Amino acid sequence: MSTSPALKKDQQLQNRARILVKCPDKPGIVSLLSSFLHTHNANIIASNQYSSDPEDGTFFIRIEYHCENLVGKRDAMEKEFAQLAKTHDMTYSFHYKAIRQRAAIYVSKETHCLMELLWEWQNGDLDMDIAVVISNSDVARPMVEALGIPYYYIPANKDIREQVEAQQIRLMEEFKVDLLILARYMQILTPNFVAHFESRIINIHHSFLPAFIGANPYARAFDRGVKLIGATSHYVTNDLDEGPIIEQDVERVDHRDDVATLKKIGQKIERRVLAKAVKWHLENRIIVEGNKTIVFH
Amino acid sequence: MSTSPALKKDQQLQNRARILVKCPDKPGIVSLLSSFLHTHNANIIASNQYSSDPEDGTFFIRIEYHCENLVGKRDAMEKEFAQLAKTHDMTYSFHYKAIRQRAAIYVSKETHCLMELLWEWQNGDLDMDIAVVISNSDVARPMVEALGIPYYYIPANKDIREQVEAQQIRLMEEFKVDLLILARYMQILTPNFVAHFESRIINIHHSFLPAFIGANPYARAFDRGVKLIGATSHYVTNDLDEGPIIEQDVERVDHRDDVATLKKIGQKIERRVLAKAVKWHLENRIIVEGNKTIVFH
Amino acid sequence: MSTSPALKKDQQLQNRARILVKCPDKPGIVSLLSSFLHTHNANIIASNQYSSDPEDGTFFIRIEYHCENLVGKRDAMEKEFAQLAKTHDMTYSFHYKAIRQRAAIYVSKETHCLMELLWEWQNGDLDMDIAVVISNSDVARPMVEALGIPYYYIPANKDIREQVEAQQIRLMEEFKVDLLILARYMQILTPNFVAHFESRIINIHHSFLPAFIGANPYARAFDRGVKLIGATSHYVTNDLDEGPIIEQDVERVDHRDDVATLKKIGQKIERRVLAKAVKWHLENRIIVEGNKTIVFH
Amino acid sequence: MSTSPALKKDQQLQNRARILVKCPDKPGIVSLLSSFLHTHNANIIASNQYSSDPEDGTFFIRIEYHCENLVGKRDAMEKEFAQLAKTHDMTYSFHYKAIRQRAAIYVSKETHCLMELLWEWQNGDLDMDIAVVISNSDVARPMVEALGIPYYYIPANKDIREQVEAQQIRLMEEFKVDLLILARYMQILTPNFVAHFESRIINIHHSFLPAFIGANPYARAFDRGVKLIGATSHYVTNDLDEGPIIEQDVERVDHRDDVATLKKIGQKIERRVLAKAVKWHLENRIIVEGNKTIVFH
Repeated sequence: MSTSPALKKDQQLQNRARILVKCPDKPGIVSLLSSFLHTHNANIIASNQYSSDPEDGTFFIRIEYHCENLVGKRDAMEKEFAQLAKTHDMTYSFHYKAIRQRAAIYVSKETHCLMELLWEWQNGDLDMDIAVVISNSDVARPMVEALGIPYYYIPANKDIREQVEAQQIRLMEEFKVDLLILARYMQILTPNFVAHFESRIINIHHSFLPAFIGANPYARAFDRGVKLIGATSHYVTNDLDEGPIIEQDVERVDHRDDVATLKKIGQKIERRVLAKAVKWHLENRIIVEGNKTIVFH
Repeated sequence: MSTSPALKKDQQLQNRARILVKCPDKPGIVSLLSSFLHTHNANIIASNQYSSDPEDGTFFIRIEYHCENLVGKRDAMEKEFAQLAKTHDMTYSFHYKAIRQRAAIYVSKETHCLMELLWEWQNGDLDMDIAVVISNSDVARPMVEALGIPYYYIPANKDIREQVEAQQIRLMEEFKVDLLILARYMQILTPNFVAHFESRIINIHHSFLPAFIGANPYARAFDRGVKLIGATSHYVTNDLDEGPIIEQDVERVDHRDDVATLKKIGQKIERRVLAKAVKWHLENRIIVEGNKTIVFH
Repeated sequence: MSTSPALKKDQQLQNRARILVKCPDKPGIVSLLSSFLHTHNANIIASNQYSSDPEDGTFFIRIEYHCENLVGKRDAMEKEFAQLAKTHDMTYSFHYKAIRQRAAIYVSKETHCLMELLWEWQNGDLDMDIAVVISNSDVARPMVEALGIPYYYIPANKDIREQVEAQQIRLMEEFKVDLLILARYMQILTPNFVAHFESRIINIHHSFLPAFIGANPYARAFDRGVKLIGATSHYVTNDLDEGPIIEQDVERVDHRDDVATLKKIGQKIERRVLAKAVKWHLENRIIVEGNKTIVFH
Repeated sequence: MSTSPALKKDQQLQNRARILVKCPDKPGIVSLLSSFLHTHNANIIASNQYSSDPEDGTFFIRIEYHCENLVGKRDAMEKEFAQLAKTHDMTYSFHYKAIRQRAAIYVSKETHCLMELLWEWQNGDLDMDIAVVISNSDVARPMVEALGIPYYYIPANKDIREQVEAQQIRLMEEFKVDLLILARYMQILTPNFVAHFESRIINIHHSFLPAFIGANPYARAFDRGVKLIGATSHYVTNDLDEGPIIEQDVERVDHRDDVATLKKIGQKIERRVLAKAVKWHLENRIIVEGNKTIVFH
């Protein structure tokens, strides 16, 4: 009896997982982890590692593995691994491909980043559920609701920040959101809000950070006469535009490009930089360490 | 009787010139300039223009032209043009291909940018005479003197800055230097020195400005965790690393790259960015306007 | 009495035009053209020129100009210019910004290029009317009709090519189409069809031409083990994938990328390369000369 | 007693190695290899793996490790590993950082690639000994001999190919050459010569392969009107320009660039593409599989 391709694909999804581990570097860790997986008949599909320093540094690894009947085995595996981790001072997390992350997308009036995310998502390139879209404008409602995604229009400004954030936090809980994507959501978040979602809020900033932190980066890039403009996706911390950088990219501009043109060119960069950052986050390719990221490709 | 290719090339050099003009924008300027050239039987080879605003803006144009017997005619042409320029409120300059600019290259211990310039120059890609190399180290002497270029080792530090600069200014005069290239010359220049050579000092800064102004940009880029590093060539003004940007470029880096690796990658960017800026300066492609550049390609 | 910004913008549109000229190179042409425009109180906004050889070559120029009351003057200007052109052996064309080109977009099952064009068009970045979309699939109908654009589903294959093309030609005439954009329309066109629309059909080919001409370029790129894949937009001629190239771009790939991944990466390249080519065509920046293009930036 | 930094660096060199393994993919291989290394107190510094297909595919891995007293232990380790490899059907190779590869550089009249390699080598970026330079021109002799590297001027053309190659093979043996770098050596090699050095000859081709295979790629790129030109480094096989590609890169060009300009732009691409390929080869990052390469970064 053979298996249909669709069923096979589904089983493959059920049997795929990733483990991320961080621990003090010392000989034998890869051996330990790979033996653990082998004992459970898991086949390593991909593996990336990094050590801040082979002597006395910190060791990071991401292993993607395939394991028959993973659903039946994973609780036992996790329990066993907890013991191992304790012995070797490991911080770790398991991620199962079959359990999709649930994302909330925050957006303001400019919808280009939202559109790119929706597009990639419809195209099957972003392995997440879009639980909800939150906006301080109503402009994106039709395109979002057309896809069957709930849309909440919550007017926001700095005077009502606390009520707005309280409502947003309730919605994040209600929709069981794992990841918040600020797709050009032009509001500053309070430390309280950020604390709720540590390393789970991805922002796109419309400059090549650390140049042009803060407001109006395109106008300031124009004034400075730079020859390249950029965009930066990063995790949000309480220091404005200072969080761990995930991805950056640039495009060439010249003296003829006015601020409006810079903005248009910049939108294309923002779209692709944010989409990449989200994709890598969903694939558990990113480890935040201090104020920097390790991104395993 | 036909002309040998070598002679033809030499004549072509003698008969090539460029004019740069800046004036208030209004209809008829291109007509005026092209008629002037046509009257003198000059053929326009290339022309680039830019207007900060077609209504009430400033107009900039670079015209490259070929003119038989230019040596015999150029004084008369310049004299006639002076009249025209006065009438139409033009700032302008004529540049003759046969009259090569004389450059001084300033360098410290790191010689990668110097080597790139020497290489491109030997390859015929930088249309200048290298009048002299100035360094606060003796390390580059052999490679420079091997090419027959005078080399001055002038130890420099901030305590003796004024004497050093006085000597340097004398050398610039003695060697009739038109252009100063700071090819990783790690000394700060005084306002007095800079004033002597306005818009004639090109520096290479080892970051993507305005990020990481000042010292140790690679170490700071590492600490910030950027995903691209860059280099910037600019004209030197009295605001450190704030002068008009000529060219910038970047390369991708990742979490595995330590400061030493960033430096090595950065050196490749510095080499090509500085060489481009110098080339464009020599071809009179750059107009400084305020704190920005217009670069005609 | 002052003018409202909206009215001003509209007048600006009415008063903007471009002229493209090709003629034997000789001194005085720029003077001639700029004097002609100046005589009619037209202000040159931008000008690009190229000569295949300053001696005995062919000269090409694109001039963008602003002229008050252009609508009232343009017939007289064109008539006068015809005389000038005859005298100086010029081929030329006038293009008025207020007269938008009418485009037909051809698409098959893969809609990523169509979507990019619709997006850029809605965003105001493609200065054209989309007269009609033609497809040999019905998949894109909803998104096209939602924008009020007529959609024709015309099944096509090589056996019925002639009838299909006859119908398509009728539609092009009916909809008064100036430009045909093959946004991944996977059908070969007959010489008869191509002849109807010389230098007016833009195709996107999913490889870095001349590598991988013909079918399945991604699979062949995979087999060859290239480290970059690309896309090429070009005018369609009767030699398959051999027409004048307008724009090309590439992205980095590696040994881990299978054909499906190459396709996904390639789609992003195709989208931006086709959009650029169409934009430049609409801005009359492209001159076809022999089997090559001059693209004025 | 502490160790001086210089001594420490030298010991580190002595204790660093890499192993490359290829075998049928099945669960447990990473576990096997990492346990083997751990048993010998080797610490894994970096590890990259790739599987052509997790089910029934071929598995490839590169592991870089550090092992105290490696010199004393390596024979025993290799002997033990041979047994393991036999059991698991592995093809493998050990590479010790302290044992530098010996390279021969082949060059013709154009020396830009040779110069780049010499530069990177002097800069400490290419971990090899340059055993000898072979050329069919005498032009590069001074710069090569100035660095104490033997230089052999062997005139070559297709009529005397066999004698020339016989002499070259003798020199390769005499100088114990591991790697042959064709740094723009414009001679075709016979199958006999190539067979002597399988997967050990790296060539730089001055086009973006598979476009413009064979002679005069820049002239043909000009004729085709491409908008990007490129260079490709690859291992040499008996199919001209058809060997496994290691690295490629491109630069933008436009209609104004004549063949000479394309050549100059191309030289910069050739320089960096060849230097990268050589560096990766020396770091044992490249595995040739069929007619493709796996390059572990």
